[in-house]
Amino acid sequence: MGIVGLYVGRFQPFHLGHLEVVRSILTKADELIIAVGSSQYSHTRRNPFTAGERIMMIRESLRDAKIPLHMIQVTPIPDINVHKIWVAHVSSYVGRYDVVYSNDPLTSYLFREAGVKVEPIPFHRREVYSATEIRRRILQGEDWRELLPEAVCKVIDSVDGVERIRMLYQTDNP
Amino acid sequence: MGIVGLYVGRFQPFHLGHLEVVRSILTKADELIIAVGSSQYSHTRRNPFTAGERIMMIRESLRDAKIPLHMIQVTPIPDINVHKIWVAHVSSYVGRYDVVYSNDPLTSYLFREAGVKVEPIPFHRREVYSATEIRRRILQGEDWRELLPEAVCKVIDSVDGVERIRMLYQTDNP
Amino acid sequence: MGIVGLYVGRFQPFHLGHLEVVRSILTKADELIIAVGSSQYSHTRRNPFTAGERIMMIRESLRDAKIPLHMIQVTPIPDINVHKIWVAHVSSYVGRYDVVYSNDPLTSYLFREAGVKVEPIPFHRREVYSATEIRRRILQGEDWRELLPEAVCKVIDSVDGVERIRMLYQTDNP
Amino acid sequence: MGIVGLYVGRFQPFHLGHLEVVRSILTKADELIIAVGSSQYSHTRRNPFTAGERIMMIRESLRDAKIPLHMIQVTPIPDINVHKIWVAHVSSYVGRYDVVYSNDPLTSYLFREAGVKVEPIPFHRREVYSATEIRRRILQGEDWRELLPEAVCKVIDSVDGVERIRMLYQTDNP
Amino acid sequence: MGIVGLYVGRFQPFHLGHLEVVRSILTKADELIIAVGSSQYSHTRRNPFTAGERIMMIRESLRDAKIPLHMIQVTPIPDINVHKIWVAHVSSYVGRYDVVYSNDPLTSYLFREAGVKVEPIPFHRREVYSATEIRRRILQGEDWRELLPEAVCKVIDSVDGVERIRMLYQTDNP
Amino acid sequence: MGIVGLYVGRFQPFHLGHLEVVRSILTKADELIIAVGSSQYSHTRRNPFTAGERIMMIRESLRDAKIPLHMIQVTPIPDINVHKIWVAHVSSYVGRYDVVYSNDPLTSYLFREAGVKVEPIPFHRREVYSATEIRRRILQGEDWRELLPEAVCKVIDSVDGVERIRMLYQTDNP
Repeated sequence: MGIVGLYVGRFQPFHLGHLEVVRSILTKADELIIAVGSSQYSHTRRNPFTAGERIMMIRESLRDAKIPLHMIQVTPIPDINVHKIWVAHVSSYVGRYDVVYSNDPLTSYLFREAGVKVEPIPFHRREVYSATEIRRRILQGEDWRELLPEAVCKVIDSVDGVERIRMLYQTDNP
Repeated sequence: MGIVGLYVGRFQPFHLGHLEVVRSILTKADELIIAVGSSQYSHTRRNPFTAGERIMMIRESLRDAKIPLHMIQVTPIPDINVHKIWVAHVSSYVGRYDVVYSNDPLTSYLFREAGVKVEPIPFHRREVYSATEIRRRILQGEDWRELLPEAVCKVIDSVDGVERIRMLYQTDNP
Repeated sequence: MGIVGLYVGRFQPFHLGHLEVVRSILTKADELIIAVGSSQYSHTRRNPFTAGERIMMIRESLRDAKIPLHMIQVTPIPDINVHKIWVAHVSSYVGRYDVVYSNDPLTSYLFREAGVKVEPIPFHRREVYSATEIRRRILQGEDWRELLPEAVCKVIDSVDGVERIRMLYQTDNP
Repeated sequence: MGIVGLYVGRFQPFHLGHLEVVRSILTKADELIIAVGSSQYSHTRRNPFTAGERIMMIRESLRDAKIPLHMIQVTPIPDINVHKIWVAHVSSYVGRYDVVYSNDPLTSYLFREAGVKVEPIPFHRREVYSATEIRRRILQGEDWRELLPEAVCKVIDSVDGVERIRMLYQTDNP
Repeated sequence: MGIVGLYVGRFQPFHLGHLEVVRSILTKADELIIAVGSSQYSHTRRNPFTAGERIMMIRESLRDAKIPLHMIQVTPIPDINVHKIWVAHVSSYVGRYDVVYSNDPLTSYLFREAGVKVEPIPFHRREVYSATEIRRRILQGEDWRELLPEAVCKVIDSVDGVERIRMLYQTDNP
Repeated sequence: MGIVGLYVGRFQPFHLGHLEVVRSILTKADELIIAVGSSQYSHTRRNPFTAGERIMMIRESLRDAKIPLHMIQVTPIPDINVHKIWVAHVSSYVGRYDVVYSNDPLTSYLFREAGVKVEPIPFHRREVYSATEIRRRILQGEDWRELLPEAVCKVIDSVDGVERIRMLYQTDNP
């Protein structure tokens, strides 16, 4: 099957920076597994979108960007909150993989400790293409659409995502 | 996006009967989500293969069968063992879908109770194309390869699946 | 408040034998807490009805039987499957109680081991007034209504309980 | 049965504002289910009282206020922390209900998203009749009794609740 | 520290066969970790004794047998029921170890698959020195004391273990 | 067996203050159970070390300090996050004990509420011998070794604990 890459994120939401990462990994790997972490959560400030919504965002963005979907498997992975067994847990959900692409220190550390090869990702304009920044802009009514693929905007609109995020900041019970 | 179908199973392992079902659904739906249930389990008699192994079985079989992978999303879903909330749980993992394809009475019942359209699947030679029968044949050394796509046989061989299944019947702790 | 009794059961479904027990306990206790165990389960062969359905069965039956509802608190309690801490778990859900009424050997044992007073219940015609027997009759189309308060029959009818139980015996995934 | 209302809260503790809400709902609904959320927690800063203690607070306050207990069912509901399936979860614990009474934005949002009718509650002097404010007063030795029904004060005294809350602010492990 | 051996079992109860295994491992290893599996369970037919009771059985038996306790660490390990991550889970509880001693096919398989060295244990008279057989004898009133170290008999007597096991076979709710 | 003491902590890491406590308890108790709480966690800012690593720290420190290991049982205990049943949970993991040694207000409160005898521990220079302070020093490159037994320094070095802790403060996902 050639080289299988693994890219782990929460994608709350999937933005143009993530899209660039996928494009860049596909110049090096023959197949790519995109692992959608914290998959059981949604409707919280940090995780407003469901796993299903996030998978739709990713697939439709890749389709529009002419990235060949048949080379890509998108796999939701629930959190287990026990870091020591996290790599074994991820591995059971994704089958064979050869390289992990990640800039997150903890993710990199845990995979390296388990003997897996980890490569950093050239990440373009990290401070702007940030899901945290995008959720902040949505909350405060600033322009967030410019940071997202059009397909993601459509998913957010179709589930009334703006209202959902604002509502999550009015509740006591986030 | 047209009609999105949902097909739920455990695929322990994915066999030629499942492949026929996928082919048949794709004549009616524009996109298909294959939900791999009981995704957290493996190395048990009823669930010998990991979610990752099962996803590989499905993707490689579809690829060999020239079924267009870009129309298909394979999504592992962990069990929650609380039937009343199972449909809401599945829905959060798969996003939008229009029809569920299933012959299982409980699956059909729960989706219908939740107001979802369910259609039966024409299932060819059900008594032979059965994952239970295949696991039995593997255990007893009978011919099991004839019931599986070649890609599935390769995955099983690559993870020493025959030995794994036999071992699971020698332990006290299944 | 006088003497508070605790009566623990799964009530799948609540039948005339249970009703007799409640009546009999109320001759001895001033208040009664009816704990509905295994509250998170439903739609299984052993636990076909939800906690909400079971609470409705109990309340409507008591109302019809002119048993004063203001003396009774019906409290669902989820299973925890760790017997050693089960009494502490139940206690946190029910507040103060003075006596446990039970004929089940394990329930009695665990409460006694924790220092709680347990009294047996005079249980009339135990082999017939049995939830297991009632579920069997429903499944096999025999007369089950004679063993239940009319209000319970109504709840079962309103949720299509007969079909639900039959369906649970046709699935592979009980 | 007429209209069944559902009122969801944590009731840490049940105060005079809650009591007014109950009274007000009963002018519109024929039966009321009071759902005691986060039922598995206690002995934490945010959830000092057990489900059992909270049920006792509610029942005794209603009894003293001459609110007919036979129209009311108090049901503890454990948290599941997965918002998308929370409505299905609550529904399985409470059976049939027609209207949800709530001012919490998230609660309202989730029930509305699931197609349930939600009505706001006229809530008198919200900033004072607040469980957070009451726990603060208890901690700092200010007058908290004026905000609570007398029956709730009695429950708190009988379990040494003042000492419990103060102790919870001295530990490192809240 | 020399060679650290790991011996995994449920020890329901710890018997003379287990004691022989410990003695035999200590001829090969410098330290021994005895992992008490299924540690969260007790008061069930398969797991009648708590983790705490089992640790007491082991420590007192080793002390009486003059096996140097300072070479031994007894560590309870809760089940996780997800076999693929079980080795990582056990490893996080026991720290460094060099060899696993086991005759169980699944245990051996999972550790070997994870790259750990596994050695079989010479197990004397396996059909008699069996925890299942001992629980059967206790239940049926046959002689079980001859199969156990005296210290284990004392622990069983002190917790009324015979009555506990008999009771577990009279309940419906094992 | 004489008096059995129970000493509960997280030991992240085990330091010279803890060692003094152990020494001091052993002047009053004949056996000591050291319960290592939050045993399932590791690789977080508050819980950087695994249960296995913490057990090794404790055993090797006691061995070096000539404290007789045969009088001591080190038992990891997973958190359950439900305080009301925590004492029953701990008890099932540790068997018989007579006195709890603790300065933590919540631990003391919960054991006392359950009727267990609790004694405070004379704790020397609490503000310096503090695991929080030690983790802070490790993070900021100050001298932390002076606060730990040499054996603990060795364990930390052997698992690259300094790098692990620093990395945990660079990740977003603590």
